[in-house]
Amino acid sequence: MPTTTWNRHHILSLADFTTTEYDTVLQTAASFQEVLSRRTKKVPTLQGQVVANLFFEPSTRTRSSFEIAAKRLSADTLNFAAATSSITKGETILDTAKTYLAMGTDIMVVRHREAGVPNAIAAEMDRLGVRVSVLNAGDGQHEHPSQALLDLFTICTLIDPASPRLELLKGKKIAIVGDILHSRVARSNIWSLIASGAQVHLAAPPTLLPKLFAEYILEEVGGKEQGAGSRGQGAKGDKLILSSPSSPTLHSRLPTPQLFLHWQLEPALQNADFVMTLRLQKERMTAHLLPSLREYHQLFGITRTKLQLCKPKVKVLHPGPVNRGVEISSDLMDDPEFSLIQSQVTSGVAVRMALLYLLGSGKA
Amino acid sequence: MPTTTWNRHHILSLADFTTTEYDTVLQTAASFQEVLSRRTKKVPTLQGQVVANLFFEPSTRTRSSFEIAAKRLSADTLNFAAATSSITKGETILDTAKTYLAMGTDIMVVRHREAGVPNAIAAEMDRLGVRVSVLNAGDGQHEHPSQALLDLFTICTLIDPASPRLELLKGKKIAIVGDILHSRVARSNIWSLIASGAQVHLAAPPTLLPKLFAEYILEEVGGKEQGAGSRGQGAKGDKLILSSPSSPTLHSRLPTPQLFLHWQLEPALQNADFVMTLRLQKERMTAHLLPSLREYHQLFGITRTKLQLCKPKVKVLHPGPVNRGVEISSDLMDDPEFSLIQSQVTSGVAVRMALLYLLGSGKA
Amino acid sequence: MPTTTWNRHHILSLADFTTTEYDTVLQTAASFQEVLSRRTKKVPTLQGQVVANLFFEPSTRTRSSFEIAAKRLSADTLNFAAATSSITKGETILDTAKTYLAMGTDIMVVRHREAGVPNAIAAEMDRLGVRVSVLNAGDGQHEHPSQALLDLFTICTLIDPASPRLELLKGKKIAIVGDILHSRVARSNIWSLIASGAQVHLAAPPTLLPKLFAEYILEEVGGKEQGAGSRGQGAKGDKLILSSPSSPTLHSRLPTPQLFLHWQLEPALQNADFVMTLRLQKERMTAHLLPSLREYHQLFGITRTKLQLCKPKVKVLHPGPVNRGVEISSDLMDDPEFSLIQSQVTSGVAVRMALLYLLGSGKA
Repeated sequence: MPTTTWNRHHILSLADFTTTEYDTVLQTAASFQEVLSRRTKKVPTLQGQVVANLFFEPSTRTRSSFEIAAKRLSADTLNFAAATSSITKGETILDTAKTYLAMGTDIMVVRHREAGVPNAIAAEMDRLGVRVSVLNAGDGQHEHPSQALLDLFTICTLIDPASPRLELLKGKKIAIVGDILHSRVARSNIWSLIASGAQVHLAAPPTLLPKLFAEYILEEVGGKEQGAGSRGQGAKGDKLILSSPSSPTLHSRLPTPQLFLHWQLEPALQNADFVMTLRLQKERMTAHLLPSLREYHQLFGITRTKLQLCKPKVKVLHPGPVNRGVEISSDLMDDPEFSLIQSQVTSGVAVRMALLYLLGSGKA
Repeated sequence: MPTTTWNRHHILSLADFTTTEYDTVLQTAASFQEVLSRRTKKVPTLQGQVVANLFFEPSTRTRSSFEIAAKRLSADTLNFAAATSSITKGETILDTAKTYLAMGTDIMVVRHREAGVPNAIAAEMDRLGVRVSVLNAGDGQHEHPSQALLDLFTICTLIDPASPRLELLKGKKIAIVGDILHSRVARSNIWSLIASGAQVHLAAPPTLLPKLFAEYILEEVGGKEQGAGSRGQGAKGDKLILSSPSSPTLHSRLPTPQLFLHWQLEPALQNADFVMTLRLQKERMTAHLLPSLREYHQLFGITRTKLQLCKPKVKVLHPGPVNRGVEISSDLMDDPEFSLIQSQVTSGVAVRMALLYLLGSGKA
Repeated sequence: MPTTTWNRHHILSLADFTTTEYDTVLQTAASFQEVLSRRTKKVPTLQGQVVANLFFEPSTRTRSSFEIAAKRLSADTLNFAAATSSITKGETILDTAKTYLAMGTDIMVVRHREAGVPNAIAAEMDRLGVRVSVLNAGDGQHEHPSQALLDLFTICTLIDPASPRLELLKGKKIAIVGDILHSRVARSNIWSLIASGAQVHLAAPPTLLPKLFAEYILEEVGGKEQGAGSRGQGAKGDKLILSSPSSPTLHSRLPTPQLFLHWQLEPALQNADFVMTLRLQKERMTAHLLPSLREYHQLFGITRTKLQLCKPKVKVLHPGPVNRGVEISSDLMDDPEFSLIQSQVTSGVAVRMALLYLLGSGKA
C-alpha cells in the first residue's frame, strides 16, 4: 500500500472531500486492484478487526461488496439484517449502533432509508470518544460515497490504469441521466465530478428534476465553489443552466460553469465522454412522476442511436441493479465496447477495500 | 488428495457423467472424509477463493452443507438470500450472477425453483469466457447432482470404506420410493445408479409416476444407453416395465434391463439392497395428487414390516428433511441398523468439499 | 487461559452450577477480556471447530455476540435462521439438530421460544453418545445462562477487575426489577446471585409477579438450598417475603434469608448496590397485564430520583434491548456513572468466548 496520511475518521459524504483524499482513495484502490488479480486475493491487513454491516435497508449488492472487501482484508464480519433485529423490538438506531460498538466493532458500514442516519451514528461515536469509524453505504436520498468513489475509480483507471487520479477528469463532459431527484448516487457523484474539474450535465424529465430542486443543487454546489459569501438570491439566475423545449438553455455568466441541468437528454449527451445512468425506482410510476417505463425509455433511456451524439469512445455506467430496457437498452448493457457496468462492480471491491483499509489501519 | 485429471468446469447434471468422473468424486470425497475425522478439520486448499451460495430458493440444509464444506477448504463464502435481494428490484438472474462474477466469485453454488437456471448461468459464464464454475444445488424438478453423489458415496463407503467406487453397485437392487414426478433428487440418482450397473426400481402411486412420465423416463434413460439411433416410438414398449394392480408387470426384452417402474411398493422392495425414500411435499395434497398422508404412509411409507421383503442387511436413505411417519416410520428413521440418513448428511460435507475442490483447484 | 478442570458438557441452566464453575467462567472470561484489549483480538483456540447458532427465535444481539465470540476463537460459524429453514417444511427440532450434528458441528448455541428445547437437544446428543455440546442461548421463560453469567462478570469485574470471583457479591443487595414472571434472564440471575451469597430483591407489579408464582420461586430456590427433604407445604410461609401496600412485608424465620419479593419498587431499591432492570415486552400490554407504559415507568421505571434510595455508588444493568423511558429513564441509561449497559455487552463477548472455550477445549 502507498504510505499516506489519512486523517478522516468517518466517510459520510463527499461534499468536503479534498483532492488529496480523492487521490489517496484512487491510489490505494489501485494497489488492491492488483492484489485482486493474484491467485490468493487476501491480505492480512485488518486481521482481528470487526467490520459490522448495519443494513437497516435490505441490500444484496452493496452488502456483498463490503463483505467480500472486508474478508479479503482478513477482517471478521458481522451482518445485521433489519428484518430479524431488535429494531422491531423498539430499540433506537443509536442503541443498536452502541451495542455493536460494545461488542468490539471497529468499522460500521451503515445503510438506512433515512438521510442522516450514518451521520447521527458517527456523531454519537465521536461524542463517546471511541475510535469506531462509520462508513455511509447509502442514506435515503442523501449520499452514497462508496458508489461515487467506485464510479470515479472506474473512469480514472480506464483513462490511466497505472496512475488513476482526480485531474484526469478535468474538462471531460459527463452526463448524469435519470432520477436525479431521488438519487443518493447522483448527489455523491456531483461532488466528486465537480471536484475533478469535469463538466457535469444532469438530464432528467422535469418531474425528476423540478426547477426548485435544480436551483437548490446549483445553489449548494455553486455556493460551495465560491464560498459562503456569494450565496444569495441574485446569484442563482447566473448559475441556472436549464435547457428545455419551452425555455431555451440559459448560459451562465460564471467564468467556468461546471454544472448544467437539462430537461432533455440530447444536450447532455452532445460530445459527452461518459454517461452515468441512474436506476429508476418503479415506485416512481405509482407516484405519477412518470407516464410509463416505455415513454421514459423513449425519452431518457440510453441506446446505441442516442450514443451517436456523444464522443466516439463514450462509455456508459450504471450503479445497478439495472432495469434492462428502461434506463439503458439491453444490448448496450452487455456490450463491453460501451458498458462499464461490470467494471464498476469489480472496482467496487477494490475501492471498498481501500476505504476499509484507510479507516482501519489508523487504529493500530 | 489423489492427483487426478478433472476437466469438467461446471457440475450441472449427472446425465453425462463418466465412470471416471464418478470414481474421482468418490475417491476425493474419501480423502476429505479422512480430513473430517481429524481434530483440525480444515485444509488451506481454496484459501483466497470465493464461493458464493446463490440460493434463489430458501434452504438451510443444503446451504449450510456447502457453506461448511467451503469453510473447511478455507474459502471465503458469500450468502445470497433471495428474499432480501435485488431480485425483488427487477434485476434478472443472469445480471445477479454477473454481479457476483464481477465481485470476484470463483464458484457459484446455485439453487432455483426453476429447472435450467444453473445451466443458463453456466452458459452465460462460458459465453463471457470467464473461469467461474457453476454447481447446481437443485433446480426445480430437474436435478440435484450433489445429493445424488452423496447418496452414492454413502452407499459405496458402506460396501468398501477403503475404496469407494462406482462398480461396487453393479447388480445391486435399489428401490427409489415416493414422489418421483416432482423429485430432482430421483432424477439425479437414476443417472448415477444406472451408470453404476445397479438395478433401479422406482415405486410410486400413479399420480406421482404417471404413465406418460414413466415412458418419458424410460425413453430418456434407454435412449441414452442405446445411443440416439435407437430412440423411437417402437422401442418404448420394450422398456416399459410397469407393475400395477390393474396391469401386470411388463418384462423388458432388452438383455439387461436396469430401470423398472412400479405403481406398487412390494415388487420394488423384494430383495432390495438399498431403499431410497423421497421427501413428500405436503403441497401435493392440496393439488389432489394424494388422498391423505396416512394413506400414503400405509401404501408407500417404509416400515420395519415392509423391509422384511428386502435383503436382510437392507439400508434406507432419505435426502431430508423427513416427514416422520409419512415417508418412513419414526422408529426406523432413528435405527442405525437400517437408517443411513445421518451418514448421508456427513457424507454431504465430504462430497461437497470434493466437488468444490475439483472445480476450484483447476483455477490456479 | 487458566488451566482448569471443567467437566460440564452442556450449559443449559445455572440451577446446579457450583461455585467452582462460576469462578472458572469468571476467571476464563477475564483472560479473554484481556485478549480483547489487544490490537489483534483473535486466538486460534477453536480453529477447525464449528459453532452452529441454531436460533429458532429471531435475535440480533445475542446471535451477533456468540458469532463474534466464536470468530475470535477462530472457530467456523454456521447461522441457522428459523424463517428460511426446514422447520417450515415440517422437520422436527431434534432432526434439525441431528442434521447439524452430522455436518460436523462441535457446539450448538440454541435459542427457542419454548422452554426446554436446548435440554431436549442435549439429551438427544447424549443418548446418541456424541461429543457435541449444547449451550442454551435463551429458552422460553426458562433460562438464559450466558446473560446471567455476563451480568455476574460485569458486576464482579467492577468490584475487582484483577480477580473477579463469586464471593465478591456476598452480602451485596441486588434488586431485580420488572417483568419477573416472563423473564428467563431473571430466572438465571436468581440462581447465580443466590449462589454468590447476595441478597436478591425482586420487585414487580403483582400482575408480573403473581403470589402463586412468587411462592413457586421461593419454593424452588429455598427447596434447593435446604435440600430436597425440606420441600413441603409447611415451609413455604416461612420464606414468603412479600411487601405490598395491602399486605406488609413478611420476614422470614430462616437464619439468612436471601430472596425477597416485593410488589413495590422502593423496598427493593433501599440501600441496593446494584439494580438489574428487565426488558418489558410490549405484548404484555395487550394481555392486560399492565395499564400503560407510562404508568409502569412511574411505578417501576428507574430514574435518578428513585436511585437516591440506593447506595451512592449504585449501578444499573439491563439485558437490552431497552425501551428508553420505560424500564429506565433515557438520560440515566446514557450516564456512565450509573449505567453498566455498555459494559454488559462488552462482557458478553468475553463471557461467551469463555463458555465456548470451556465447552470446546475438552474435545481435543
